[in-house]
Order: sequence, then C-alpha cells, then structure tokens
Amino acid sequence: MAQVRESDAAKQRVQHFINGKVVDGGERSFPVYNPATGESNCEVSLADAATTRRAIEAARDALPGWQRVTPLNRARIMFRFKTLIEERADDIARLITSEHGKVFEDARGELTRGLEVVEFACGIPHLLKGEHSLNVGTNVDSHSMMQPVGVCAGITPFNFPAMVPMWMFPVAIACGNTFVLKPSEKDPSVPLYMAELLKEAGLPDGVFNVVNGDKVSVDALLTDPDVAAVSFVGSTPIAEYIYSTGCAHGKRVQALGGAKNHLVAMPDADLDQTVDALMGAAYGSAGERCMAISVAVAVGDEVADALIQRLKPKVENLRIGDGLAEKGLEMGPLVTREHLEKVSGYIGLGIEEGAEAVVDGRKRAFPDTEGYFIGGTLFDRVTTDMRIYKEEIFGPVLAVVRVPDYETAVKIINEHEFGNGVAIFTRDGDAARQFSQDIQVGMVGVNVPIPVPMAFHSFGGWKRSLFGPLHMHGPDGVRFYTKMKTVTSRWPTGVRSGSEFVMPTMK
Amino acid sequence: MAQVRESDAAKQRVQHFINGKVVDGGERSFPVYNPATGESNCEVSLADAATTRRAIEAARDALPGWQRVTPLNRARIMFRFKTLIEERADDIARLITSEHGKVFEDARGELTRGLEVVEFACGIPHLLKGEHSLNVGTNVDSHSMMQPVGVCAGITPFNFPAMVPMWMFPVAIACGNTFVLKPSEKDPSVPLYMAELLKEAGLPDGVFNVVNGDKVSVDALLTDPDVAAVSFVGSTPIAEYIYSTGCAHGKRVQALGGAKNHLVAMPDADLDQTVDALMGAAYGSAGERCMAISVAVAVGDEVADALIQRLKPKVENLRIGDGLAEKGLEMGPLVTREHLEKVSGYIGLGIEEGAEAVVDGRKRAFPDTEGYFIGGTLFDRVTTDMRIYKEEIFGPVLAVVRVPDYETAVKIINEHEFGNGVAIFTRDGDAARQFSQDIQVGMVGVNVPIPVPMAFHSFGGWKRSLFGPLHMHGPDGVRFYTKMKTVTSRWPTGVRSGSEFVMPTMK
Amino acid sequence: MAQVRESDAAKQRVQHFINGKVVDGGERSFPVYNPATGESNCEVSLADAATTRRAIEAARDALPGWQRVTPLNRARIMFRFKTLIEERADDIARLITSEHGKVFEDARGELTRGLEVVEFACGIPHLLKGEHSLNVGTNVDSHSMMQPVGVCAGITPFNFPAMVPMWMFPVAIACGNTFVLKPSEKDPSVPLYMAELLKEAGLPDGVFNVVNGDKVSVDALLTDPDVAAVSFVGSTPIAEYIYSTGCAHGKRVQALGGAKNHLVAMPDADLDQTVDALMGAAYGSAGERCMAISVAVAVGDEVADALIQRLKPKVENLRIGDGLAEKGLEMGPLVTREHLEKVSGYIGLGIEEGAEAVVDGRKRAFPDTEGYFIGGTLFDRVTTDMRIYKEEIFGPVLAVVRVPDYETAVKIINEHEFGNGVAIFTRDGDAARQFSQDIQVGMVGVNVPIPVPMAFHSFGGWKRSLFGPLHMHGPDGVRFYTKMKTVTSRWPTGVRSGSEFVMPTMK
Amino acid sequence: MAQVRESDAAKQRVQHFINGKVVDGGERSFPVYNPATGESNCEVSLADAATTRRAIEAARDALPGWQRVTPLNRARIMFRFKTLIEERADDIARLITSEHGKVFEDARGELTRGLEVVEFACGIPHLLKGEHSLNVGTNVDSHSMMQPVGVCAGITPFNFPAMVPMWMFPVAIACGNTFVLKPSEKDPSVPLYMAELLKEAGLPDGVFNVVNGDKVSVDALLTDPDVAAVSFVGSTPIAEYIYSTGCAHGKRVQALGGAKNHLVAMPDADLDQTVDALMGAAYGSAGERCMAISVAVAVGDEVADALIQRLKPKVENLRIGDGLAEKGLEMGPLVTREHLEKVSGYIGLGIEEGAEAVVDGRKRAFPDTEGYFIGGTLFDRVTTDMRIYKEEIFGPVLAVVRVPDYETAVKIINEHEFGNGVAIFTRDGDAARQFSQDIQVGMVGVNVPIPVPMAFHSFGGWKRSLFGPLHMHGPDGVRFYTKMKTVTSRWPTGVRSGSEFVMPTMK
Repeated sequence: MAQVRESDAAKQRVQHFINGKVVDGGERSFPVYNPATGESNCEVSLADAATTRRAIEAARDALPGWQRVTPLNRARIMFRFKTLIEERADDIARLITSEHGKVFEDARGELTRGLEVVEFACGIPHLLKGEHSLNVGTNVDSHSMMQPVGVCAGITPFNFPAMVPMWMFPVAIACGNTFVLKPSEKDPSVPLYMAELLKEAGLPDGVFNVVNGDKVSVDALLTDPDVAAVSFVGSTPIAEYIYSTGCAHGKRVQALGGAKNHLVAMPDADLDQTVDALMGAAYGSAGERCMAISVAVAVGDEVADALIQRLKPKVENLRIGDGLAEKGLEMGPLVTREHLEKVSGYIGLGIEEGAEAVVDGRKRAFPDTEGYFIGGTLFDRVTTDMRIYKEEIFGPVLAVVRVPDYETAVKIINEHEFGNGVAIFTRDGDAARQFSQDIQVGMVGVNVPIPVPMAFHSFGGWKRSLFGPLHMHGPDGVRFYTKMKTVTSRWPTGVRSGSEFVMPTMK
Repeated sequence: MAQVRESDAAKQRVQHFINGKVVDGGERSFPVYNPATGESNCEVSLADAATTRRAIEAARDALPGWQRVTPLNRARIMFRFKTLIEERADDIARLITSEHGKVFEDARGELTRGLEVVEFACGIPHLLKGEHSLNVGTNVDSHSMMQPVGVCAGITPFNFPAMVPMWMFPVAIACGNTFVLKPSEKDPSVPLYMAELLKEAGLPDGVFNVVNGDKVSVDALLTDPDVAAVSFVGSTPIAEYIYSTGCAHGKRVQALGGAKNHLVAMPDADLDQTVDALMGAAYGSAGERCMAISVAVAVGDEVADALIQRLKPKVENLRIGDGLAEKGLEMGPLVTREHLEKVSGYIGLGIEEGAEAVVDGRKRAFPDTEGYFIGGTLFDRVTTDMRIYKEEIFGPVLAVVRVPDYETAVKIINEHEFGNGVAIFTRDGDAARQFSQDIQVGMVGVNVPIPVPMAFHSFGGWKRSLFGPLHMHGPDGVRFYTKMKTVTSRWPTGVRSGSEFVMPTMK
Repeated sequence: MAQVRESDAAKQRVQHFINGKVVDGGERSFPVYNPATGESNCEVSLADAATTRRAIEAARDALPGWQRVTPLNRARIMFRFKTLIEERADDIARLITSEHGKVFEDARGELTRGLEVVEFACGIPHLLKGEHSLNVGTNVDSHSMMQPVGVCAGITPFNFPAMVPMWMFPVAIACGNTFVLKPSEKDPSVPLYMAELLKEAGLPDGVFNVVNGDKVSVDALLTDPDVAAVSFVGSTPIAEYIYSTGCAHGKRVQALGGAKNHLVAMPDADLDQTVDALMGAAYGSAGERCMAISVAVAVGDEVADALIQRLKPKVENLRIGDGLAEKGLEMGPLVTREHLEKVSGYIGLGIEEGAEAVVDGRKRAFPDTEGYFIGGTLFDRVTTDMRIYKEEIFGPVLAVVRVPDYETAVKIINEHEFGNGVAIFTRDGDAARQFSQDIQVGMVGVNVPIPVPMAFHSFGGWKRSLFGPLHMHGPDGVRFYTKMKTVTSRWPTGVRSGSEFVMPTMK
Repeated sequence: MAQVRESDAAKQRVQHFINGKVVDGGERSFPVYNPATGESNCEVSLADAATTRRAIEAARDALPGWQRVTPLNRARIMFRFKTLIEERADDIARLITSEHGKVFEDARGELTRGLEVVEFACGIPHLLKGEHSLNVGTNVDSHSMMQPVGVCAGITPFNFPAMVPMWMFPVAIACGNTFVLKPSEKDPSVPLYMAELLKEAGLPDGVFNVVNGDKVSVDALLTDPDVAAVSFVGSTPIAEYIYSTGCAHGKRVQALGGAKNHLVAMPDADLDQTVDALMGAAYGSAGERCMAISVAVAVGDEVADALIQRLKPKVENLRIGDGLAEKGLEMGPLVTREHLEKVSGYIGLGIEEGAEAVVDGRKRAFPDTEGYFIGGTLFDRVTTDMRIYKEEIFGPVLAVVRVPDYETAVKIINEHEFGNGVAIFTRDGDAARQFSQDIQVGMVGVNVPIPVPMAFHSFGGWKRSLFGPLHMHGPDGVRFYTKMKTVTSRWPTGVRSGSEFVMPTMK
C-alpha cells in the first residue's frame, strides 16, 4: 500500500487519486493542520479544472467495464473493503483525529457508522432488484431494471472525513457507477486512504477517484457534462448553490445543508438521561456535527432550571484535549483557527443579544498548546429572535430556550429555517407520537439525541437542510444512484408453431 | 355540476378553479380552437401572478386539513372519482377531441390510461407504508414515515389534456398533498371538468386547483416559496427551464421533455406486426405524442425496402377527419395552425436536406374544412445529420433510417439527444435482451411500439428527455410526492417498574 | 338478482352457489334461526361429498380462463364489487343481524372491515409484482412471477359471516385463483348474497362458489386433490384438524384458531378509556369475536378495584335487544340455544371455581322473547388455573385477573395456550414498546382493545391461535394465494450477428 | 479449532455438536465411506431421541439470548463466517469430495452457492424490516415486526452436504432463531466443520447444533413441541412424511422433494450449447442433484437425432475418477454401493421397458478401484409410461423423449408428478416467454440447464417437489424463519397538555 501522504522534502503533500494512482495536479496548495497542536507538517494540492477533468475522464472511461461486473461481484469487493477497513481501523481513526481534532473514540465511532454503509452495500444484489409484472396486458409483460447513473460526484465536509464520503461512494459504486470524491481540504488524508483500500480490495482503476481542491474543482464537477449525479453535504448556502448549479446543468443532485437541531425536554423526561444526552450531543466532536444538538427547548421553567443546574458543572468540567495524546477525553479542538474565531464571535454576540452565558467557553484557558481549543459554552434564556438561535454556529455552544408548553416547542421548531434533526425527551407515548408526526424535521429522536438513521435507513433533513427528493444511503441511496428503465414486451408467435418459424418473414 | 365553460355573451370562457369554485382572474385571454374546424367559440383566461398566487394560497390553506384525512379516506375519494370518470367518459372524450383534435377512440384511450393512475392511487394506504426496524440497537427502534410534500404544481402539455395531468394529481393528492394544475392553454376544458368531478367525489375545496395561463403563471408557480414540488411534461427546452428554475428556488422537480423515439426493425421481425405498429405509433394522434415513433431504423436494406413498400399505401390512405363527426378515423388534425405550419416546414426541410419523401403529407388536400389537417408523411433514407432526424417534429412524419447492422442501430440511438422511448421488433430473445440492457432510453418496447409503462410502474425517459431522478406515477410517483421522515426511539424504564413512575422525575 | 333464499313451500331454503347458479345438493338440511326471536323460517342445505365435488370441479374448470384474465381486469371486477356492496350495504347488514344476532351498526362495521379487503385487492396489479434481477451472472437474468395456486377453499365461522370470508376470497380471486367457500351453516345467507354480487360485478361463473354444509363438505374439501390451498377460521381444535388433514393431503393451509385475548391495564392507563374499551371489546357482538377481550389483567389492586367499580354498573345496564327492531343497542343475543347453554354453563363453572361473579348475566331476564339472550357477566379475582381463564368461552363474559406487576402480566399471557390478540393500556412509551416486543401474541394493541390489522396489513395470531406461516390478507394473503416461479435466462447470440440467424442451427 | 472427526481408536467417529461442543450421543453408529475407494475409516454416531432432545434444549435455551442480539450484530457474525469459509474453502471441498464423491471443482462450486446465502444473510438488518403505517385511523398507527420463530430444525440430504444446510441455517440464525441440523449420515463431516467455523466466528453456544442420525432423530425433531419450524430437502415420499408429521405437530414446514427435470430442445436451439448443457446437467455430480436434468425432450426427430449423435461420444468418454486424486474430472462415483445397485437396476429396467440404450453405463469398467463408479447412460426413445421416465433415478442417466411439437413437450412436463426444475433451449423470445408462463414447474431455465435461483431469490419447486407455501432462502426464506407481529397503537392525550399528566388517572 502506497503512502497516503507523499513526503515532499520538508513537508508532506496530499495529492489526488486518479485512475488507481496517486497523482499531483494543480499548482495551488493548502496547509493541513493538526488542530490539537496548531502545527502543519502537510499540505494538500488544490486541483485545477484540468486535474478535475482528468478524474472525471478516468471515471467515465472506467464506467463501461465496471457496469459489466455483476452486482454479486461488485458486492464481493465491498465485502473485502469492509474487512480491510476493520483491519486498519485504528490507523484511520488516528488520521481522522490528527486532521480533524475529534477524540480517538469518536473517530472510531465515525468510522463504524461509515462502515455500516459498506455493509449495507454488500447487499446490493438484493437491493438492485427491479419489478416484474406478468401480463400487464394479455401476453404483454413489463419489468423494470435499475441501471447505474454514470459518473457520480461527492463533495464532502471536514466534520466527518470518513463517514460522510462513506454515505455516498459504497452505494454509488455497488450500483455500478464510478465516482469522483472532492473531500474537504481541511482533512484530506482519510479519503485517499480509502481509495488505496478500495484498490487493495480489488476495485478496478478509475472506479473511485479523489480530487482534492476547493471551489475550482467543485465548479468543474458541477458543470461537467460527463458528471451525472452530485451528492453534497455542507452548509445551507453552499448546498443551495450546489443544487441550483448542478440542476441547471441537468444533473440529479442531493444537497444536504445546515442544521439547528433542537432537543425538547418535556416535564416528564428522565432528567439524568436528558442531561447526558445533551452533553454528548452538544459538545461531542466540539459541536461540529450536522446532527449536534445546539438548542435545548425546556418545557416549563422547572425543567429549564433543573437542566441548567445539572449542565453547568458538567460543561465547566468537560475533559478537553488532544485526542492522540490522551484517553478518556470528551472533546477536542475546533478544526481551524478561523473557525475558533467564528465560534468565539458567536459567544460574544450571544451575550450582546441578551442571552445569559451560564458558562462562557472563551474563559477556559489552554495554556500549554497552540491548538484551536475552546471550552464548552452554555447559554440560558436564548430567544428565537437572536442570531445565536437562528444561525448554525457549529461549535460547542448549547442554547437553552424556555417555552411554556409543548405547543410552543413545536411551533418554534417548525418555524426554524432548518429541519435536519430533532429530539424529544419524554416518557409519554402520546407526546412522542404526536411530536414525531407533527414536527417539520426529517430525523426525529425519541429519547435519542442524535437520531442518525442506520445505514439501511436513509439520512436526510427537511426544509433548508436538504435540497432534492432523495435522502442518502439506505433505499433512497440506491434509488439516487440508479436510473430506472422499464421494458414492456410481447412476442409474435414463433418457433412454437413450426410453420411460421421456417418461413422467413420477408422476401 | 357547474359548467366547465362559463358562457360569456357570444363566446364561452374557460376560467380557473380555485378553492372549489370556478373563478375569473387575469385580464388576458387566449382563443381555444376546434382544430378540426378551425373555429373558436371559446377562450381561456390567462392567469396573472396574483390569480396564480390565489390558487397557491388556496392549496396551502387546504393542506393541514387534507393531511389529517387518513390515507384510507383519501383513497375512498379516489374510488368515487374513478366511478364518476367512468360514468362521464364519453363526455370527457368528446371534450378532448373538440379541443385537441385526436379521434374519439383515441381520446377514450387516453382517458383510460389516466384512469389507471387513479386506480393505482386507490391503493395509497399500502403504497404509503414506511419501514420499521426493531432493535437497530438494543431496545432502540427506527421507523420511517412518508409524509406529504406540501403544495404541488403540475404543468402539462396540450397533447394529453386528460392523461398527463392524471399521471400527477391522483398520486399527489392521495399522498396528502394539495395541487395546483396549470394545463395547456390550447385545450383547457378537460382539467376543469376533472376539478368538478373531484369535488363531486368529495374532495375538499382547495385540495385541487386549476390555473389556466401561460409563462406568467408558470413562473409564478416556479418561484413561489409555498410550492414544494413541480411536475412538468413538455418540450426539452422548457423542461430544462422548469428544472433549473424550480430547483434554483429549492423545489423538488421532475421535468419530462422531448423525444425522438426509434423503432428498430430487425431482419427477423414480424413484418406485418411491425408495419401495423409503425402506422399506429407514428400517425396516431397525428404524431403529437411524446411516445410516438418518429424514426424507423431498418436493419438491412431488405427490411427497409419491405417496410417502405408496405407503409407507402397505408400512409397514403390514412383515414383522416373530424373525430366528432366521423367514426373509424385513424388521425385527426394538428392542434393549431401554427403547429401545422411548423410541421409543413419540417417536411420541406427534409426534402431540402436530401431525404426521400415517399409520401408528402402536404400534398393531400382537405378541401371542405378550415381545420388544421395534413396528410401523413413518410421519409426514406433519412440520415442522422439531418435536422428532421435530430429534432422533435411532433407531427405525422415518419423517417426511415437505414443501417447495416444491429450495432449501428444501437449506436445512433444512444447518440441521440433524447432517450424517452424506443422499440425493437424481433423474434430473437438475445436481440431483445441485449437491446433492453444496452440502450440508453428509459422506456423500451419489445415488439411494443409505444411502451408506456402501466400506472403501477413508472413513466420516464433518460438523457435530455427527463430531468430529475424520479419518474412519474407508480412507486416513483409516490416517492416524489412524499417526504421521508425517520424516527429513532428508545425509552427510559417507566411504569413497568412502578417506583420510577410514581416518583416525579424532578422537583 | 336472484333470491339468496329460495322459497320452498312454507320454508325458505338456502342452497349452494356453483358455477354461477344457485343449486340444490345434499339431502340433509339444517335450520337457520333468527337468534333474536328463536324462530326459524329458513333452512340450509348441507352438501354431501358429491355436491362439494361439483363445486370443486366448477372451480377447477374455471381456473384456466380466469388465470388468463389480466390482473388489471381482475381488479376491475373487484372495483365493481366494491361499488355493489356499498349500494347494498344495509341489506347485507340486515341479513347478518337476522341470522347472527349482532346489532345492526355492528353488522355494518363488520361489512366495512370486509370491504377494506376488497379495496386492498383492487391494488392487485401492483401487489402481484415479482422481482427482476439483471445480470445475476454476466448476461444471465432472473425474475420471479407470482402465479395463482389453483382452487382455493375457505372454511369460515358463524361469527363474521361477511368479514371473514372477505378476508380470503377477494385476495384469492384477485390473484387469479378460483374459490370454494364453505361458510357456517348457522348464518349462510350472506355468502350467497356475495356470490350473486360478484356475478353481477362481472365475475365469470365458477370462479367463486359457495357450498353450504358441515363436516362432510369440509372433509371433501380437505382431501380433494384438486384443492390446492385451504384457509380456515374457527376454534383451535378444528383449526388443528384442518391444518393436519389439509397438510397431510399436500395442501398449503392457514388455519386460524381460538383466542383468549388479554387487556393489560397499567397503573397509568387512562381509566375512562380503558373501561370504554373493555365494554366494547368484551360485550360487543356478545363476545363472539376471535378478537374479543375476555380477560382484563389489572396491574395492582388499585387498578382492579377501580375497573370493577366502573364496569359493574355499565355491565348491568348493557342495552341488549333485537338489532333489527331497535336502534342504539350494544349487544344482541347469542347465536344459538346450544351456545347460550354453553356460555351459561361456563358462568356456573366460574362460580364453582371460586371466581367472584360481580355481575351474573344469567340473572338478567328477557321476558318477552324466545331469543337467545343473556346479560353480560363480569368476574373478578379469576386465577390462571381456572377453566374459565384457560378456555375460550366466546360469550359476553369478562374475567378480571389481578396481578401485582407488569412482569406477571406478561408472564401469564405468554404462558397461555393462545396468542391471537392482546392489548396494553398505558401512557408510558417504555411499557408499550417493551410489551410489544416481548409479548408472545400476534396482534398487539396499544390503547387499542381489538387490534385487528387493517386490510393492507395481515391478520394472524401466534401459538395455538394460528397454524401455518402466513397470515390472512395484506401482503401475506397475496403470498399465500400465489406460487412463486423463478425464471433464469440467458441467450445464445442470435440475429444481432446476422450470420448465425440465417444458418439453421442443425442439419 | 477442534477436530471435526474425533479419532476413536482405529476409526474416526463423527459426533454431534451441541451447545458449542462436540459430544457423543446414541449407541448406534453408521459407517462413512469414501465412495471413490469404497473404504471407510470413519463412522458417524446416530443420535437417539435423548441426544436429539439435548440439542433441542440447547437451542431452546440459547434462544432468548440470541434474540436479544441486534440484527446488525447477528449479521456481523455472518460476515466473519463468510471470511472463515473463504479461508478454509479448499479443506471443506476436500471433505465434501471424500465423503460424497463429487469432483473437487464441483465441491468448490457447491460451497460457493452456499456461501452466497451467507452473503445474503449479511443483509438481515434490511431484510427484517417490517412495515409502518401512519394514521390507519386518525392518530392510530400500525406497524409490523418480523420476530424469530424459535427453534428451527433442518433435515438435509447427502447430495449437497454444504450447500443445502447453508440454504437454511444462515437465514434462520440471522433472523434470530436457533437451529438444530440433522444432516445426512452418509457425509456428515462438513456440517460439523461449519459448526466449528460458526463458533469461531463468534456465534454463541447453542445457537447452531448438529445432530447426526437417522429416522430416530428425525422423528424426535418432528414431534418435539419445542421445535417451531422444520426445513427439509430430500425425496418426495420423505418430504411428504416430514410435511404431514411436522404439520400434525403444529409446526410450520417447508419440505422439498424429488424431481424429474426436463430440458426441452426446440428446433431453433443452439445445439452445441444444448449438448454442453445436457452433459453438465445430466452427468455432473453423477446426476445426484435435485436440479439435474434427467430428461431431454427433443421437439422433432431432427433435433433428437442430432442430440443423440452428439451426446453419444461425449457420454462414452466422460472423464470419471476420484476427485481427490485427479484433476479435470467430470464425474465421480455414486454415493454408496446400494445406490450404485439401484441406479444399475434402473438401467436394466429401462432396457426391459423398451428404451434404447445408446450408452449403457454399466458396461464401463473401473478395474482399479472398489469405488462406486458407473459410466454415464444415455437412453433414446423413452416414453412417458416407462418407470425410468416417471421415477427419480438420481444417477448419471439421461433419457431422451421425442415429441412432435412444443405443445406435447409442455403437456408431458405438466403431467409429470414433479415440478422442481425445467429448461427450454431456444432462441425464440415467444417460445421462452410462453413456456415460462405455462409450465407447471417452480424453477425455469431459458437456455440455462440448472436454473437454481441465486441466494437473493428463492429456491422451490411446484407440485410434489415442494410441500408448503414458502421457498428456501431469499425473501421467502426470511418470511419462513420469522413470525409477523402487528402492533396497532393510539395514545390518550398525556403530558402534552400538562394538567392531565400531573393528575393521576385513578384514586
């Protein structure tokens, strides 16, 4: 197995993976930092349009051959890929931690969730089945076939460098497509590692390609006529851009955007469980998750007071540190210095807007490191007109909103721009069921704070958290990565009645 | 039942149907002609943006109530709608013929194909089922629910004033959505008739609305934030506009465009059957069908010669006339004078381009009528560089292209811009199977010239014949008109172990 | 429409319906009573083996023709049948009441539940779809087809003369099978009425046949080699006999047996709702329902006391009478004098066994009638060793069992011989979810006392309440009434490469 | 890993595998031969009823724990099992060859087909999904859950010691059941090897058990109340016994019986392909396959003559030998001396009955071995009244039946007692399609001689080749190994409207 990072004199350089080879391309580059130390001993090449086009061409040229491989044999490559990932899981997790900053156990968890999609994709012979109708008319039959779409592109964010790409490419590839992945330039090494493992698993060259880059390569992918489908996960403004640009170029697009996920704590919630859930869901991975809980909606002041009382010491004492150096951590650094400043800015803004900073994470000192660390922040008495309520902060900041009753809780959530995930904590079957039905959010947790659907279900939000009709992975993923063809057939009487057969039909 | 056409002094006026009532709206109007006579005793209101907005608002306001109706009861309205359509089928067919021009039997056939989608929609309680997984984790369950998208818009073409709208609204409505239909201004009466029947079947006001109009109302629908989904059938340039504009406004869109459907006649085809198929598929409904066969690909000169020899007298002797006045007709007029001129122009162009006009439909005289009649045209030796090959003519013009072998037949079809429908005529299982697999077209007929999938399968082409991942009606239709919500749940131990329950969780 | 009951001198005689005609057959007969008056002005022919065989032959002979009718057209007959039933619903309900005794509204309700299966069967073109796999091997495809099983027999109980047959024949027939129904001899008129309506709806003669009779005709059906599948609903000993006898003759069999359905009232249950549920579910239709609740399991004495206190006056004041003569009744008579005596016997036995008869229905007087009336009975402090707990009484007798906790409730239910239906009344999500998972019963209600699955789901119990793997109606019903055929195909290269085709393959 | 065969003084002894351990049990034993040498250095214990009961009890006791393992984690054991089998594939194949006699490549092929079911079972999280319906009534929901059946038994034949057990247990176990396998006593080692591999893959003790034995253990399994489901593959008389006995004891049973598979050679068949297909399908594995072709139906004497002419030299020159000693063999010995004598007897009978023995396999000498070898036999002019046509010979004997036309071919096949597999060889789409529709056989090959459905489809014949409604593996396998539970729920208004919650519902 080749090196993911090509050593280049003093500094390593993360390149592209095109047609089965690690290749250079593009004159520009971008430094990759270890967020826990603030050091960069690596940079990533930023592909220019020509390099991106090379990857698309590799994918296009690999398509006919890969389509001809039977689904059974495509699945077997996925089986081997699964085994390889399991064998190298610790290596991959360390790579995640070193570039993203999340703690090691969290990186392992991310990888496992991605691996589940590979396991799902192993079932592709069953999942690709079309339908067959005998006698739609007398002696006329009809059947459907789900065929590959063609070259698919994935554009993925920094916050799950392993899992989010794995929502896409295992399904796409198992369906018979070829793939070009444009991962985040902030933590680019894991996708390249995946590319090598896929090759080792037997995937033919050109079927899976990685292009590192920025908007230049994104635009190349969105406008190239040889790209048939685009999957995206990122912020809502970019998702909207991806959706409108990709669609304007005739592609099918699924574009997942931002989130502001609420957890409704009902008066009958198990309070210990709720607090534990909030701690993990708000501060885990430093809040840099599209399914992080950033708003706790307390129904009644009694609930709110109790939550604040219990959360405060826990937030103050979050175990924060370098995930490669320490065990048992709860939270690592933010991904970049810029992001650290943005999150800090939101905390200041919240105080200006009148929110009560029960814990101000900016005050926590991290004296011995240049890493992008910040403490957890807890706001009380946040209101729906504040920007810290409306906007996605993507950091370890939890806002408690107090509402008088269930109806108000539902109302503010349904009025929010985003509709990715939501949770309700209650013991009450009625509350859970009505909430599940009425809430305008795509993924609902009942006493589950981060209700990411399993790989065999599909991931997707509502409102401005998702553009396009189909969710990711699960049955929707298969539908997204296939084109339906419907065949209707009947036959003239032939060799069954010998005479017709031996008489040629024309002369 | 109210009059579909409101009598307005001398001339009837087709209005809009908003919130359960026939209403006026928009100052502009457009004359509606009987293409078989060239007379117009009717005009249609063209909605302005405000009128369109009224319809959207009616649909938006009807949404909460209609969503609450159970799928079982929504289906029962579809059952009654089916019965009503069957009772009024002749009236509707006459209305189709009088505004579109297609012969009566063809109008009845169109209605039946639309009715089949209503029958499919009667099964909505089964079709709306989500999935349920017990123990995705220990004592954690997950289930999905398919909920309505919201206000859906349908924009439909003149060529199937009954069937194409019925591809959309029965499924959309049965799924719990409300609907605004913008039909073609050329034959607007049938959709209004449908609206009245739906009301008679018990559909609440505001659930189904019809706005007559042109680009003004289309743009209003495409850009209105209260419209969640857009279904379109028409030409490719408009489909592309609909798709990019609707998507740029965050909607889910399925946009079906133009076609150039080929029929491949293999050397072993049943020639009588092939000729019959070509006659019906090329000249039926005057070729104004998105699934019409406009190109016959003859594999070998022997086949080509035989086809030409048999087609020529049949094309010359097509029974053409006014479908309301005569029985047993094969073809009616074109829909408008403009369209007649356009088709005539293509015939002239074909001759200029060097195609051999075996039958020139322009030469056929229709002395006793001002209707938009033209004879059938048959071209031989058409080549793939001619505009009459590349472009959709949408008239009774059949082009024979001669190819030396099967591979060339597949190649030219796969290189054509469109990929709506295609047919192969052969007795050979291998040819049919390979063709079905390899051809880049969404709907394939094996000895079936117009392979429109049944209502319980899905309609949709490939390449520039369809934009968006999901086809119309059938399972894809249900997916298009629903949003998936995934619920993950677990519960704290509760009343099962009594002590916890009686002890309130907070104080 | 012919008379269901053929007038025969003084007394009407219910005959058989074979090959589209009402026919006599069998020398024996059986009186049919109006249970509300004790009068019989009708008798039913009991088919001998020869008559039963005639019906089987009619069904066998009709099979090839009916199989050839496309699913779409078979569905359309179901659509018409639905319309006819709706038009005659009151007539049918009166017929039910007059022979079974249940009150009119209940008879209408039964019919509606049956009708829902007809509505489900209208979706048969979609439901019959097989699967299609492209390229299970290179250029080898596979698809499955669901074809009719052949002649199917239904053997149905007295308690739902309309609904239970309708669980079976609409699905069986829509799947392309032909059917012989052997209904209960106690209330035989409704099935014959159905047969007439099916004929009126366009069903070809011989597809649906009714044979009235007793064990003679049952045995003829179970052993006849021309019967392919048997569906049965009745008591467990008979179900077991049907299953073992039918299977020993090589048939596929689904045999639904007896029940003892528990309702668990948890301490947090909504008590008003629980009491209402118990009243309807225990005494409705005089308890003659396989989904009736006959045991209330009170968790804690507090719950038990409260239930008894509220139930007692309601049971004492049940509105009981002749459903044809009065409106607003809650309960009618038992079906026969024999059954009345059996139920009375159980009440006496319960007292002997030591149960506390809070209300003894035998004491209620019905002075002005010879009908088979009895009051509602309520037992408290019933224990699991009593015969009135272990056995199915099938009358208006509710036993309250007191348990100390949830675990005991689950334990006794799981240890009971039967596992048809069960309910839990609680507000607690955890209790409902764990109960649903752990309980060894096929149909579970959460705050729903009679959780009969909808037509698009499937009906079936566990343990000795059902023999055979497949439930009735819904997807399982379709699977039961079809045989799967799997076709694997590949083709030698043929006309695609011209030379091979023109050269005959042998000489 | 423990030894599959426990060395016992001079001779090895194959034991049982119960609760994770190889154990002895039963005083009787049976010699296991190497059919290629006629030697036995091994014997197999024959379980008595008590030993069988121990296995059932182990499975029953392991059930609660195994059910609690989530489907995802059950699948992961299957993933590991797949990897282990791949690693040991050659060992397993040698074990097959040494006890069954089939050649090594064939043994590898058998294992691969079995492995595909393991791959299918890896998808169990998706396959186990139930259905969820929101609002079957207003605020009433319904969902279904597929739960394990309980203890499942598999009774399998000698001819596929690896594949046929693998049709059953991977699906059964993945569904959450526990399993007792009673393999053939003729080649018992492979199932024990599988048991060891499953344990190595992490399967808890007691989930998979193997009991070697004969009718004593079979009867113990069929009558034990703790066995819920029985799967069987073998001859029709035994299948019938299994079905009727198992069903009489209340179990669900799928019992696959004998076969007489026809291959119809149409006049347009590719003759080389047909002959190759016949050679492999008739003589491969010495004809000891339930999907072997034992009858070639030649349509027309021309076809028959051509087939005979080409088959004769190939049959005479079949490469026959000891699969462990030689490579490139086409056929090994029969499984036992008794079976050799039975097959020889059938050849003599055929000649007596008047069939023309083109090649008489008895005449071929195998001088240097005591193995149970016989040459291939080819009969011409076999008629449908002969016993060699009617009965399953299960040896390398191919009968050619001459028919004048297609209709006769279909007629004789449909009249045969068995309906397992069938094939048609033709180039004609019409012949293939009509044949597929009309033939009364469960598995149909179009130019495929042994159309065994892939693991993700289901295996099963019609008529007296299968008893019970559900086929093996694929979706039917999942349905067979699960019980459906349907939950209907609604909730009293609870904590959503605070007052009700704080007021206890009773007092």
